[in-house]
Amino acid sequence: MYKAKAYSAASATSPLAADAIERRDLTENDIQIEILFCGICHSDLHSVRDEWGGAVYPIVPGHEIVGRITKVGSAVTQFKPGDLAGVGCMVDSDGSCPQCKAGLEQFCPNMIQTYNSPDKHLGGVTYGGYSDSIVVDRRFVLRVPPNLDLAGVAPLLCAGITTYSPLRHHGVTKGKKVGVVGLGGLGHMGVKLAHAMGAHVVVFTTSPDKKEDALRLGADEVVVSRNSDEMQKHAGSFDFILDTVSATHDINAYLNLLQVGGNITLVGAPPKPLEISAFSLIMGRHNLSGSMIGGIAETQEMLDFCAEHNITADVEVIPIQKVNEAYDRLLKSDVKYRFSIDMSSLKSE
Amino acid sequence: MYKAKAYSAASATSPLAADAIERRDLTENDIQIEILFCGICHSDLHSVRDEWGGAVYPIVPGHEIVGRITKVGSAVTQFKPGDLAGVGCMVDSDGSCPQCKAGLEQFCPNMIQTYNSPDKHLGGVTYGGYSDSIVVDRRFVLRVPPNLDLAGVAPLLCAGITTYSPLRHHGVTKGKKVGVVGLGGLGHMGVKLAHAMGAHVVVFTTSPDKKEDALRLGADEVVVSRNSDEMQKHAGSFDFILDTVSATHDINAYLNLLQVGGNITLVGAPPKPLEISAFSLIMGRHNLSGSMIGGIAETQEMLDFCAEHNITADVEVIPIQKVNEAYDRLLKSDVKYRFSIDMSSLKSE
Repeated sequence: MYKAKAYSAASATSPLAADAIERRDLTENDIQIEILFCGICHSDLHSVRDEWGGAVYPIVPGHEIVGRITKVGSAVTQFKPGDLAGVGCMVDSDGSCPQCKAGLEQFCPNMIQTYNSPDKHLGGVTYGGYSDSIVVDRRFVLRVPPNLDLAGVAPLLCAGITTYSPLRHHGVTKGKKVGVVGLGGLGHMGVKLAHAMGAHVVVFTTSPDKKEDALRLGADEVVVSRNSDEMQKHAGSFDFILDTVSATHDINAYLNLLQVGGNITLVGAPPKPLEISAFSLIMGRHNLSGSMIGGIAETQEMLDFCAEHNITADVEVIPIQKVNEAYDRLLKSDVKYRFSIDMSSLKSE
Repeated sequence: MYKAKAYSAASATSPLAADAIERRDLTENDIQIEILFCGICHSDLHSVRDEWGGAVYPIVPGHEIVGRITKVGSAVTQFKPGDLAGVGCMVDSDGSCPQCKAGLEQFCPNMIQTYNSPDKHLGGVTYGGYSDSIVVDRRFVLRVPPNLDLAGVAPLLCAGITTYSPLRHHGVTKGKKVGVVGLGGLGHMGVKLAHAMGAHVVVFTTSPDKKEDALRLGADEVVVSRNSDEMQKHAGSFDFILDTVSATHDINAYLNLLQVGGNITLVGAPPKPLEISAFSLIMGRHNLSGSMIGGIAETQEMLDFCAEHNITADVEVIPIQKVNEAYDRLLKSDVKYRFSIDMSSLKSE
């Protein structure tokens, strides 16, 4: 066991503050990583404030981790000290269930999340990436391509895979017409990735002033979703729509934009139930699906795809001391498009 | 043009009554059929009473038609007088759109329904199967296998294909665990077909007294859906669930019974929007879909499958004179499981 620096919240109403936490000594399968950057995901804020329930305090959030390997266990052969490495939303799973065997560790009944999940090594709960160091089983460590900006790589570990996985699963490729609803942390990654996959990308936004930025990110068209004439022009034309919005909104308006057999996949989770017209599904054999991050092999595939296409998240880099301010700004969607914490700022704590 | 006997409704509040209607003379591609049986679909009732809007009176409902060919046009080679034939929910489509080319005529923007759609030959609207005779383009006439009871074949043309198509589309086969929600006209066909496809079939019903009948129809298990303990036993276990219920009900309870990647398909259309929890879709990458009848080639495949497995609908045969009474009973679900009108009863009108 050793001490690591971290930022933690002591309760649902406490700000995040400097703390010292314990990290385990390496087992033969473990990898120790010096954390260089950690993205801020909206679920960090939900977890810290216990808005989804189940928070155990102190909580150290952060599951968009990129860093450099400082030590490896004796059985680790695929990584060595000095290598870049990433860690996403998961740090363990049983490895034996049908989901794990299918490379869908995110649906393993015994999956352990990067923070606030039971820690079988030290007891208590796992601590996330708002820290200067982490120890993770080799099966959950990703190779980070050397050609990408590390601050922008961090959000790929959650926002990147969350959007990449459904795009791939639903066959997005050249020749497909793809919609992306919402242009935030998830949406801006969806646009970049769908564009790189060769699709014709249409961004739906409630904010006309996001148009220019959407085009810069790779959109071919931008539709202001409150303009029903603009929406109607696209009726029955989409192969796939990625819905990244976590506020309540009208899904039926998007179902009606699908081609026969088309699919809308939700990666945002509005708190209230969605009102879905059965006719919107039946007419045109439409599909409404959900998707949650992605498996480890697919996360590696995503990182390699991003390296090939030179894709990172658009980030605003902040020192850890500004994390509480960043949370406030996140609530106002005042970030383009993800905060990435420079963990070297922890040294002064 | 010639006169045919029929039963029609003169307005949304009129009972069905004997009428004489016009049928067109055969073009070279047409087939004339003496109608022997016509099933009563719940949508007949919705249409006659204009509950979905758009009814043009007089309306002659009926799209579960089976009969014997009496005459064929000069270009018709695949059928001859004396052959058995079936007609379902469609009598025309443009034949050139992507949907038609994909064998999904039901989604053709120019699809013509068997009744109450614009009639390009005679003007006015098409008249359905509550009649002694019909003339239909050969592309929309199905071969009816000779080994099946004709009264029970009629409902296959709508209830049969409506359930067969999603079961096939979603890969139901031996080794799959399949749920069927609701045991009415659609549900009882879903059970028979899924059982014949080799699946392990679980019926969900609100009526414990339907258990014995569900088992007789081919169910392996029956779950009373109001019993949450019984429901919970099946959590996360279904590959596919066919939801045939057109009353408002809780879909989330069924989403939670799906395996990772599982699908629920709606073939019933509740009038109010469904309340869907986004989490129920996201957790487990679940899918909620709709399906509407099936294409012509698939309808033929379904009839051939039914012939091979000796499947027909369970019907109560009635004379046309009892059709208004049957509608009243339909509203009380007082039929096991479909009314089939014996059209020889029209001779006395």
